[in-house]
Amino acid sequence: MSSLPATSAPTALDLTLDGGALTAQLVDFPSVSGEEQALADAVEAALRTLPHLTVDRYGNNVVARTHLGRAERVLLAGHLDTVPIADNVPSRVEGDVLWGCGTSDMKSGVAVQLRLAATLPDPNRDLTFVFYDCEEVDAVRNGLGHLVARHPDWLAADFAVLMEPSGAMVEGGCQGSLRIKIMLTGVRAHSARSWNGDNAIHQAAEVLARLRAYQARRVEIDGLEYREGLNAVGITGGVAGNVIPDECVVTVNFRFAPDRSEAQAEAHLREVFAGFAFEVVDSSPGALPGLGQPAAQAFLAATGGEARAKFGWTDVARFSALGVPAVNFGPGDPNLAHKRDEHVSLSAIAEVERKLRAWLTAA
Amino acid sequence: MSSLPATSAPTALDLTLDGGALTAQLVDFPSVSGEEQALADAVEAALRTLPHLTVDRYGNNVVARTHLGRAERVLLAGHLDTVPIADNVPSRVEGDVLWGCGTSDMKSGVAVQLRLAATLPDPNRDLTFVFYDCEEVDAVRNGLGHLVARHPDWLAADFAVLMEPSGAMVEGGCQGSLRIKIMLTGVRAHSARSWNGDNAIHQAAEVLARLRAYQARRVEIDGLEYREGLNAVGITGGVAGNVIPDECVVTVNFRFAPDRSEAQAEAHLREVFAGFAFEVVDSSPGALPGLGQPAAQAFLAATGGEARAKFGWTDVARFSALGVPAVNFGPGDPNLAHKRDEHVSLSAIAEVERKLRAWLTAA
Repeated sequence: MSSLPATSAPTALDLTLDGGALTAQLVDFPSVSGEEQALADAVEAALRTLPHLTVDRYGNNVVARTHLGRAERVLLAGHLDTVPIADNVPSRVEGDVLWGCGTSDMKSGVAVQLRLAATLPDPNRDLTFVFYDCEEVDAVRNGLGHLVARHPDWLAADFAVLMEPSGAMVEGGCQGSLRIKIMLTGVRAHSARSWNGDNAIHQAAEVLARLRAYQARRVEIDGLEYREGLNAVGITGGVAGNVIPDECVVTVNFRFAPDRSEAQAEAHLREVFAGFAFEVVDSSPGALPGLGQPAAQAFLAATGGEARAKFGWTDVARFSALGVPAVNFGPGDPNLAHKRDEHVSLSAIAEVERKLRAWLTAA
Repeated sequence: MSSLPATSAPTALDLTLDGGALTAQLVDFPSVSGEEQALADAVEAALRTLPHLTVDRYGNNVVARTHLGRAERVLLAGHLDTVPIADNVPSRVEGDVLWGCGTSDMKSGVAVQLRLAATLPDPNRDLTFVFYDCEEVDAVRNGLGHLVARHPDWLAADFAVLMEPSGAMVEGGCQGSLRIKIMLTGVRAHSARSWNGDNAIHQAAEVLARLRAYQARRVEIDGLEYREGLNAVGITGGVAGNVIPDECVVTVNFRFAPDRSEAQAEAHLREVFAGFAFEVVDSSPGALPGLGQPAAQAFLAATGGEARAKFGWTDVARFSALGVPAVNFGPGDPNLAHKRDEHVSLSAIAEVERKLRAWLTAA
């Protein structure tokens, strides 16, 4: 397994390695968001050696497909980028654990995709492998979003598996996310004569009191329990140490279960914050788990039959918007994503690969 | 009256001009805090032409004194610096109004000092004129503070008049000011799984509720009513748009009446914010008006007998700490200080000069 310094990163991928070793090779190939080109080149080059796949590329997004005329098409998607490296590249192995940036989120999932692409020339369903860039940054840069906009035909499928870290469990759907800015305004004055002013920060007392008192909903959808959350994620106010401030802004993040639309989520916040002005900063829809659909049922059966709700927002919502049922299923641990001590279990990588292989080769 | 562009600022002061014209000349002599040297040079040069005064200098602080062996010594103090110029230099006159940076705060007061220095060779009390730098910036840079530390003998007096803008009214004493930072801490978590965290911003709800409910005290001291104020002047919290924040800091400013010491003011805040940790960021004592003392009584009688409380903190507190009773009495309007449209009434300049002259020449 590689332990080269980052300065001599690999330049090609070896798809004959096992899933763990291939994950290590991918981790040792730095690909922080915006800097995925070298890795996308290597992925494309490796896939082009496989005669059973056609390969397309748009920017640093690579799509490889079988064309076997099967009754069903399954899409396996993973992002190539990572959050910034934090002294955790190159990777290193200790027993069953592989340490390094992107081990969980989500180069272990990408390794499983590449392993299946290389070793399943004759699957029971047609396969589409999607590798994309800029998942860890602003939504406008997201490579999967660019493919949706420019090449939706490349993404046609009956079911999608997004290989985001899910602890080798099937995680259905995802919650939506709405971010708002509540603007409180007052009247500026010198703090020595504060009665001439109206303190905007003091007005935030009521906003924060409503947040603290808020009882977040829990709701069951397709047998999965979603748990909402409403939180201040930022507050800022103040002009100078001797000035009664005339402005205070509270940024609030609402994570809502996928039975609410974005419009319904916003309407709910208009009720919660009645009497206060706010603007929506950004909004992402949730995705219903869709576990009742036949393709999802077959997948669930093949992978053990158990699923849980996904709380974080993931790109499954983009597939949901395309009408493609999608789940999260990857070897990484979602609680380790973006952490300095990010790591992954080698046996989880093997387990996820084995389950997907069984599902895609069953008679 | 001068209306030269700032690029041809005057280089000498003409003490034969009337108070308004001399104020205009001082305004046209830019002296933003830290850049007072040219003006201090001009003040020193003008004073050294007056044979009835001895002149001392420390940095950009100039002190001129009579030595007539009078029973009482009176100190008149003013700062040479201004806040940054805001397209309001050179000065201009419209009717009774002189416009420009520093007209109110406090070159009109300095003009009155210089007029009295030049024209009172034989006053009924010995006189000390203090001109100092860096009043408008951090307390550690304050020129009067430097004189207190290095040349306290230059400041010996029975009574002091600080020529800060007071609308030609006697303003007694000043309030103290205490600034604290209340630190709220929680536990960071992803906002999609907010129940794993503890939101520090939500904890600020109680702090802000106490501030909003606070009933500020009004207290009468020496016949003057002081009105306190307790306000958040800053709040900041938040890590990222998808993170439950583990820290929130509320900065609070307490303006307290001069019957409380700094220690008593802090103890009061410990009660108000019981249950919350805070640190004192900075603290300035108030100054009792001291209007019961004989020197102050004589001054009050000569200037009309009326006085009101000073709410803003001023350098009278430094004299108070030296045991010298002090009042604020200047022609500027305190509500215009630091404003782009700063101006002063020419008749107020004449009135303040006339009252001081009458007091200092009465038989």
